[in-house]
Amino acid sequence: MKIEILCTGDEILTGKTVNTNHSYISQRLTEAGLQTYWGTTVGDDRESLVNAFQQASQRADAVIVNGGLGPTVDDLSQEVAAEAAGVELELHEPWLQRLQDYYTSRGRQMPPNNKKQAMLPAGCEFIDNPIGTACGFAVNIGGVFFYFTPGVPREMRRMIDEQVVPRILKSSGLQIVTQLKRFHSFGIGESRADQMLKDVESLAPTGSVKLGFQSHYPQLETKLAARAANEEELQRVLAPLDAKVRECLGNFILCEDTETVEQIVLSLLAEKNATISTLEMASGGAISKRLVSADSDGTITRRGIVSRNLAELAASLGLSLQTESPDLDTAGQLAEQLAETTGSSHALVLLQSIEPVDDNTRSGADIFIAIATPDGTLKRQARFLGGHEWVQLGSVEMAIDCLRRCLLGLPVDEKIDFEQQG
Amino acid sequence: MKIEILCTGDEILTGKTVNTNHSYISQRLTEAGLQTYWGTTVGDDRESLVNAFQQASQRADAVIVNGGLGPTVDDLSQEVAAEAAGVELELHEPWLQRLQDYYTSRGRQMPPNNKKQAMLPAGCEFIDNPIGTACGFAVNIGGVFFYFTPGVPREMRRMIDEQVVPRILKSSGLQIVTQLKRFHSFGIGESRADQMLKDVESLAPTGSVKLGFQSHYPQLETKLAARAANEEELQRVLAPLDAKVRECLGNFILCEDTETVEQIVLSLLAEKNATISTLEMASGGAISKRLVSADSDGTITRRGIVSRNLAELAASLGLSLQTESPDLDTAGQLAEQLAETTGSSHALVLLQSIEPVDDNTRSGADIFIAIATPDGTLKRQARFLGGHEWVQLGSVEMAIDCLRRCLLGLPVDEKIDFEQQG
Repeated sequence: MKIEILCTGDEILTGKTVNTNHSYISQRLTEAGLQTYWGTTVGDDRESLVNAFQQASQRADAVIVNGGLGPTVDDLSQEVAAEAAGVELELHEPWLQRLQDYYTSRGRQMPPNNKKQAMLPAGCEFIDNPIGTACGFAVNIGGVFFYFTPGVPREMRRMIDEQVVPRILKSSGLQIVTQLKRFHSFGIGESRADQMLKDVESLAPTGSVKLGFQSHYPQLETKLAARAANEEELQRVLAPLDAKVRECLGNFILCEDTETVEQIVLSLLAEKNATISTLEMASGGAISKRLVSADSDGTITRRGIVSRNLAELAASLGLSLQTESPDLDTAGQLAEQLAETTGSSHALVLLQSIEPVDDNTRSGADIFIAIATPDGTLKRQARFLGGHEWVQLGSVEMAIDCLRRCLLGLPVDEKIDFEQQG
Repeated sequence: MKIEILCTGDEILTGKTVNTNHSYISQRLTEAGLQTYWGTTVGDDRESLVNAFQQASQRADAVIVNGGLGPTVDDLSQEVAAEAAGVELELHEPWLQRLQDYYTSRGRQMPPNNKKQAMLPAGCEFIDNPIGTACGFAVNIGGVFFYFTPGVPREMRRMIDEQVVPRILKSSGLQIVTQLKRFHSFGIGESRADQMLKDVESLAPTGSVKLGFQSHYPQLETKLAARAANEEELQRVLAPLDAKVRECLGNFILCEDTETVEQIVLSLLAEKNATISTLEMASGGAISKRLVSADSDGTITRRGIVSRNLAELAASLGLSLQTESPDLDTAGQLAEQLAETTGSSHALVLLQSIEPVDDNTRSGADIFIAIATPDGTLKRQARFLGGHEWVQLGSVEMAIDCLRRCLLGLPVDEKIDFEQQG
């Protein structure tokens, strides 16, 4: 089944806005076992829209149109859709009522031009938008179904997931229950994960589960996109692959689906009635920022200390050091002092010793991580080699991952693909 | 002149990679006074490419093709270009030599399949790629010039800027010297800036300078895209608009062109032989992260302290406070103590008092900024109202901007559009 994604709007065409909607829609189609065949982008221009609709109806089996459903004069999607389908625009009374209720509930009068958002091509199929004023619709143009969706990403995403993909799956005759299982890991690179999991798809009937990766360094996302005739069969086909991914990636799995590693760490701390303070060198406070952001009521994170200067970090805890360069013992000493000074049950320290290498675009960094806990202090040393940002992202992720491992009782010193082996 | 941008590659079509190349190319065209008329995305598929080339040649006056110039079998651009132009592929000897030299200089043998990157459609115009192995070329397909560019963003950007845009400008008969002047400001919203500058284009001959905005909240980018017959004329047409933008945005301009506000602040501190420490509440260390990142040798930033808890922040400086909730006096007291404790010449403090409002998706935040300096302590209070992230971004930007204003001797208390007026 050939699907075209047709994005409309001057902001997208001129590049003022990056077209993340295309990639979202296309990813969701792939994950549902469907395929994007063509992508078109046109501006808010009647002639271009007419041509784009006509061409899409000639080459595709289904078309998803995104954007142009707003209340202003440059939003032309409904109008051009009606023209291309050879029908009139008709008032969709229930949607007009919803719009009026929406404004009334906010103590406002509906602006007259919003009525335009309830004018739909006669005979089209209405598609609900539970979180916005632009409803969607499906209409037959030249024998092909066109699904119209709003340009606002939040509204588009919900409509694609809940309404458009299921409709296309149904019309394609494919089975219609789908699930996307995601694992987020740190420490195994995409090519190695690909190699480790190369036979995993064969554990399910052909075509029922598709394996995919998305690398957002330092994290890797491993995705299992499954589809089946019903929920029970879906769980049955997914189970052996789910188990295999867990077996392969094991301790390297940080979190799953929509979780973040910060949330995992914060809830593990909360379970233990623990608190955490952090001290970081060179990373500019990246660890603190990530943990504090996930600490919704601010009761778990206590103090974060940041400096590029080791003596300054020590001075902030009333210590004076014998050494000028960071090492693992100093990291441990600072972690223990930080826990004591702040009364935190846990303290995480990341020290770094960075030297530029070769052409100055790469650095070699020795990193020293220590975590003070009520049961003793854990330590981890590693060496990274690469561009500045790459080294920073990797060392911050490793520090947070060590904390996660420590809280779960996992080893903190399993080698990862991103550190220099030695 | 109708220009089409034709992006190729499965990664883009399936959404695995977000298509930032389209937006870059389209922005550069707009800034040069040209216009993108159509955008097409197709996969690494021969039939799609043939159709896309054919359709583009029918509707556009020039086509920029991106991607598909690599050494592997799924890179089809040269081959399909030759087929569509009705010519053979021919070895481009000088480029093959460059590829061989490139590998030799790195002590490696050129892999045989890289030779493919030197096979170009007969009679095409060669386009140099000084930083990669995929050269570009221009070829006439159906009476329209197609410009082929590599998919690697860094290589694409340089080729577009230095080679493709000038060629298209020349072929369009437009003048060919262009400049993009950018101002980054904080505190004036896009719609007000648009209003303030609505007549600015009329200060130059029609069409020679185009005004544009790009809002990256909390910053606003104001762009003047100028073109002229030669460099001297370019400066002459740009000068009055440049002056007018400076007059309107005045103290709100943070930095220009490729500068960042962090770099400006750090160089102002360096000029004064000053050092800076920071203390922040609720922002999770965002100020520290930004200043430390810009402090290339780590000599200007001293200590950063982060906590959600006011008593904890005070304790980190050996103080115990009378108050439980933040206020302007406390901010001042903490700033002075921070400067004294760390021996920093300057200390920046951001305190926040946040309460959820209405439906819990928005917060009201009173923010208190204090900057201790050798000449006394400056203070600024403001109230933000909005989503959590919006409030955090705005208050961190205001704190950094206050430091910039303090170092430049500008008033720190000019009202901005993003704070609640009262």
